Amino acid sequence: MPLQYILELVGTFFFAISGSLAIQDDHDDLFGAGFLGFVTAIGGGTLRDIMLDSYPLVWIGDINFLYAIFAGVIMAYIFFNRLIGLRRTFVFFDTVGISFFTILGVEKALSLGVRPEIAAIMGMFSAVMGGVIRDVFTKETPVLFRKEIYATACLSGAIVYLLLYRFGVDRNINLLISSTVIFTVRILAIKFKLSLPTFKR
Amino acid sequence: MPLQYILELVGTFFFAISGSLAIQDDHDDLFGAGFLGFVTAIGGGTLRDIMLDSYPLVWIGDINFLYAIFAGVIMAYIFFNRLIGLRRTFVFFDTVGISFFTILGVEKALSLGVRPEIAAIMGMFSAVMGGVIRDVFTKETPVLFRKEIYATACLSGAIVYLLLYRFGVDRNINLLISSTVIFTVRILAIKFKLSLPTFKR
Amino acid sequence: MPLQYILELVGTFFFAISGSLAIQDDHDDLFGAGFLGFVTAIGGGTLRDIMLDSYPLVWIGDINFLYAIFAGVIMAYIFFNRLIGLRRTFVFFDTVGISFFTILGVEKALSLGVRPEIAAIMGMFSAVMGGVIRDVFTKETPVLFRKEIYATACLSGAIVYLLLYRFGVDRNINLLISSTVIFTVRILAIKFKLSLPTFKR
Repeated sequence: MPLQYILELVGTFFFAISGSLAIQDDHDDLFGAGFLGFVTAIGGGTLRDIMLDSYPLVWIGDINFLYAIFAGVIMAYIFFNRLIGLRRTFVFFDTVGISFFTILGVEKALSLGVRPEIAAIMGMFSAVMGGVIRDVFTKETPVLFRKEIYATACLSGAIVYLLLYRFGVDRNINLLISSTVIFTVRILAIKFKLSLPTFKR
Repeated sequence: MPLQYILELVGTFFFAISGSLAIQDDHDDLFGAGFLGFVTAIGGGTLRDIMLDSYPLVWIGDINFLYAIFAGVIMAYIFFNRLIGLRRTFVFFDTVGISFFTILGVEKALSLGVRPEIAAIMGMFSAVMGGVIRDVFTKETPVLFRKEIYATACLSGAIVYLLLYRFGVDRNINLLISSTVIFTVRILAIKFKLSLPTFKR
Repeated sequence: MPLQYILELVGTFFFAISGSLAIQDDHDDLFGAGFLGFVTAIGGGTLRDIMLDSYPLVWIGDINFLYAIFAGVIMAYIFFNRLIGLRRTFVFFDTVGISFFTILGVEKALSLGVRPEIAAIMGMFSAVMGGVIRDVFTKETPVLFRKEIYATACLSGAIVYLLLYRFGVDRNINLLISSTVIFTVRILAIKFKLSLPTFKR
């Protein structure tokens, strides 16, 4: 198995954990948590592939993704109390995850022949829409509308990828650089509480 | 018309009634109720078919489903007060509906060549996602996250179907047995207030 | 560029503005507003095209729609305070937009070979589902469930279009008449506070 494939499964596993942990206090059975983990893990890629008419959906064509999700949900169930205490660690994993999935989403969209502007949006969608759907289900304010840099970081990294791609930079180097951009932008934004300009009233 | 087709139309009719009855006190015009009935009735099957790239969607390819929905909405409008008092009866019909549609969803997914694990998920989606979308629109906590056994019952029945299918049990007998499993699990869970293990804190 | 194409881009531009202005006071960064403008502008047509299996999606196949959205978001950002004060004007533009997009949606569905009843629903979806998705994201009661005539107006105009189409009325005249029906129904409903019969309790 090539490294990229392993990373995709690991990323899916972590998304499923973080989705499961979003279960609310007052509605928290195992199935509900599993369902949340599932939609968080598959939501973004599924929406991207439906919009691009790319079938079969990744998790339907390759059963290992489903197993990675099951593993994540079970892990979340067994180690719930310990994991909840590790929220900071999760921000770290979540950020690694969105950094990586954004660029994979951009690449998939490009490979299907869409324009770079559309590929950037599809990359961002791949990474964040799972979390948005999770937030709608748990009646949280969707992560996109909270005052922190999240989807914006994904979009910046996607644009960096597309620029370097244009200039012919080697694909693996480009993946590394542009993922790092996303990771760095988001972590710096959290650390220094950076946010985008607001709509002034 | 074969029995199964009639049952599908009847199930759609009942889903449309129960969706319409979900209209909220403070926002309750006829159109809103009709729209809720409509999404409740078509939501699950539509999502399943889009994910499986199976076109045309059932209700687009066969207009009788739309007529069944209209009939349900009008029925809900005319007999609203009486039907609201019959909520218990509706739990019965809703349970019959999800039991039946889960298995039909599993069969459709299998016929499109996906693996059994995926077919089980698709069966459950067919039955419950209409209600989930309805709950998102009415700002209710989605039925999946309430402390009662609902989607879990569907998933159990789907798994029973797949096991019996594997062992070569006749299709109609299998449909009957596995639908009955779903029905029984849900009704017993309601009667004895059973719920799944929760995430302990 | 033919007039219709220009009108589609202008309509998309206005939808993006009205979507961006829906950003909430407490969660109002530029990106969130842009995302809202984006989903409001593309949501309805995207859902229609996915349900009808019509690819590429309009905004993926023609980049000008994305540029129209960007222009709308930036416009909303720069003139936010002035535009918020123009809400009445926006009801006007929004009504023009839904009137026009409903009929275009009906025509697209018909051209893909579906029955008139389905085409009417698809026309209405094209016009209103972007706003419904926007309302779900901002945790507003979806526009369809508010006590004002909105989607109903779209549906009436769609039915008028289909009747005139049946009687062989010239397409441009039909577009003009049926859009005007939608516009008039909605504006009169607002002016005279008309609403549909409610579910009586």
